[in-house]
Amino acid sequence: MKVNKIPTPALVVDIAAMERNIKHAADYFAARQSKLRPHFKAHKTPEIARRQLAAGSCTGITVATVREAEVVARERLCDEILIANQILGPGKADRAAVVAKQASLIVAIDSDETLDDLARAAQAAGIEIGVLVDVNVGLPRCGIAPGEPAVALAKRASQTPGIVLRGAMGYEGHVMGIRDRTEREEKAHKSMDRLLSTVRMMRDEGLRCEIVSAGGTCTFDITGGIEGITEVQAGTYVLMDNTYLYEDLPFELAFAIHATVLSRPRPDQCAADAGLKAMASDHGVPAIAPLPGMEDATVLFLSDEHCTISLPADSTIRPGERIKLLPPHIDPTINMHDVLYAVEGDEVVEIWPVAARGYVEQRSI
Amino acid sequence: MKVNKIPTPALVVDIAAMERNIKHAADYFAARQSKLRPHFKAHKTPEIARRQLAAGSCTGITVATVREAEVVARERLCDEILIANQILGPGKADRAAVVAKQASLIVAIDSDETLDDLARAAQAAGIEIGVLVDVNVGLPRCGIAPGEPAVALAKRASQTPGIVLRGAMGYEGHVMGIRDRTEREEKAHKSMDRLLSTVRMMRDEGLRCEIVSAGGTCTFDITGGIEGITEVQAGTYVLMDNTYLYEDLPFELAFAIHATVLSRPRPDQCAADAGLKAMASDHGVPAIAPLPGMEDATVLFLSDEHCTISLPADSTIRPGERIKLLPPHIDPTINMHDVLYAVEGDEVVEIWPVAARGYVEQRSI
Repeated sequence: MKVNKIPTPALVVDIAAMERNIKHAADYFAARQSKLRPHFKAHKTPEIARRQLAAGSCTGITVATVREAEVVARERLCDEILIANQILGPGKADRAAVVAKQASLIVAIDSDETLDDLARAAQAAGIEIGVLVDVNVGLPRCGIAPGEPAVALAKRASQTPGIVLRGAMGYEGHVMGIRDRTEREEKAHKSMDRLLSTVRMMRDEGLRCEIVSAGGTCTFDITGGIEGITEVQAGTYVLMDNTYLYEDLPFELAFAIHATVLSRPRPDQCAADAGLKAMASDHGVPAIAPLPGMEDATVLFLSDEHCTISLPADSTIRPGERIKLLPPHIDPTINMHDVLYAVEGDEVVEIWPVAARGYVEQRSI
Repeated sequence: MKVNKIPTPALVVDIAAMERNIKHAADYFAARQSKLRPHFKAHKTPEIARRQLAAGSCTGITVATVREAEVVARERLCDEILIANQILGPGKADRAAVVAKQASLIVAIDSDETLDDLARAAQAAGIEIGVLVDVNVGLPRCGIAPGEPAVALAKRASQTPGIVLRGAMGYEGHVMGIRDRTEREEKAHKSMDRLLSTVRMMRDEGLRCEIVSAGGTCTFDITGGIEGITEVQAGTYVLMDNTYLYEDLPFELAFAIHATVLSRPRPDQCAADAGLKAMASDHGVPAIAPLPGMEDATVLFLSDEHCTISLPADSTIRPGERIKLLPPHIDPTINMHDVLYAVEGDEVVEIWPVAARGYVEQRSI
């Protein structure tokens, strides 16, 4: 199938650009003590994870949900899975215990409740589940306070049947959006100081801490270069999005939404068939890839099924023509789609299922 | 299954509240010349559409995409489907022609391109497809200019083999967000004047115009009461969302996202397991349903898998507890999910597939 025959709206991956991104990351970690544990949440797509792992320098896969872990285990993508998130709520810990029978599993904990529920499920299943103590390093979301509170939780975990303490993690998510390299470096270091000082306290107490996980796409070569960080959880780097296209990062856009112009109701506007149900809008509207007649076009707003675009009045674009939109946040965008179209040049060479979208395997409901 | 056993995050429909909404709309249209053609795009869920149609006063179903029309036809929900949207791009018109063999199909057109592609597909399939001329009534998105341009397109449609001109439509979407009833009425009337004056011109030319479709949830009893409007395309009314809860509308919230608190990293904050992959954020963050310990809680921000919540410091809420979030925009929220949990009291009585999510039937790729 030719690229221009893909039904719109559709998510299209440029395989060559993606492979270059994968190689940049693999090369970086090949030359470091730290390794990569690519974050599956960015794409939820086994075919992409296979290519990330095949490039080497990876310790396994990072995921955000039990559902993602189930798919990674079912597809036998790697030997060890890190759920870099707390899991609580009906069925989650028990489903994690099933995953832990298929692959080595590590789960983030940041409270007694998260530890206890996981221990209950592990004991009920007769298996062991690894844990990382999730330390709050500045992002106001999850994570236990650094220092004594984190060490106390680690100690409890180390003494809990069914649980194996493996180390600590801390996600400096609040740093990713800082475009200035110097400021980003400074704040990432400050966050990692919080994590690493806690790790030192854990080790002083004789607590096991072989994994220290942190980082993301925008800090992969900052956090990844800090002594003591053993692995980085970057995800977006593999396809990239508009938001993270910083000059200091070696990654390029490997991803676009193909859309068809549906209407040109006035000379200075058109509407295309990709809206809020085809892409996430939390980081704003998408950019438009330059095309003849679309050079100065900008997206005005998204509605459910439409992207309304401001055009130069002399644009010759007509209904039926194809455009490419560059969304600012790929994770929740890919989450809306069932497949990615993987292209080489103008040929669709594979159609990849976004196998881990949703929260529960539908056959199991 | 009890409601508190539903795995989170999950979309939960209160059947009793939904049935009251359905009855309010059916009662209104039972007493009018205009009828309802409920918009399937709001929920994409055949089980809900069946209940809307069973209540009476409906002419069929409105949809926004070919995919939705395919599901409505496959499920034999009604005799006549209106795609109230332009359809252009690979395969769409030909797929519409397949739908037109299973049910009477009407499609919006607003340009020669939309008419010609539909006519090509209808002729190739040896069937007829109905069209409504989509008139721009003020929403800056799609729709041909009122008056002469619209009439000229209608005339061309009436003379095109494979095409049957059925009438006109115009969506006053720009009016929905106006909370003040008087201003909303005034602007809806102004929009409908544009549509109805065009309809008069069409009839003066001897052009067929048996369907005049317009309106939405917030104008159902404004637009629906204007002489000459034959049907209303309301969708959200059936479940409602936070944005449209105007005092002058008879509809109530029948929908919530159930989430589990994952972490309480500080006394004044917690994080729950429903984020950007569980709900749309284009209309802002969700409200929180009042619960003990959550009375003064507000959502601070959403990230991919988390909803970070500001708490009163004396709140007793702990990780593992359940909360309910009320999202401000249901259409793109439901679009992210595979199922809706339908509850009566605290019992889950059915699990309904969101059968028409996505753009292409996956088996057909």
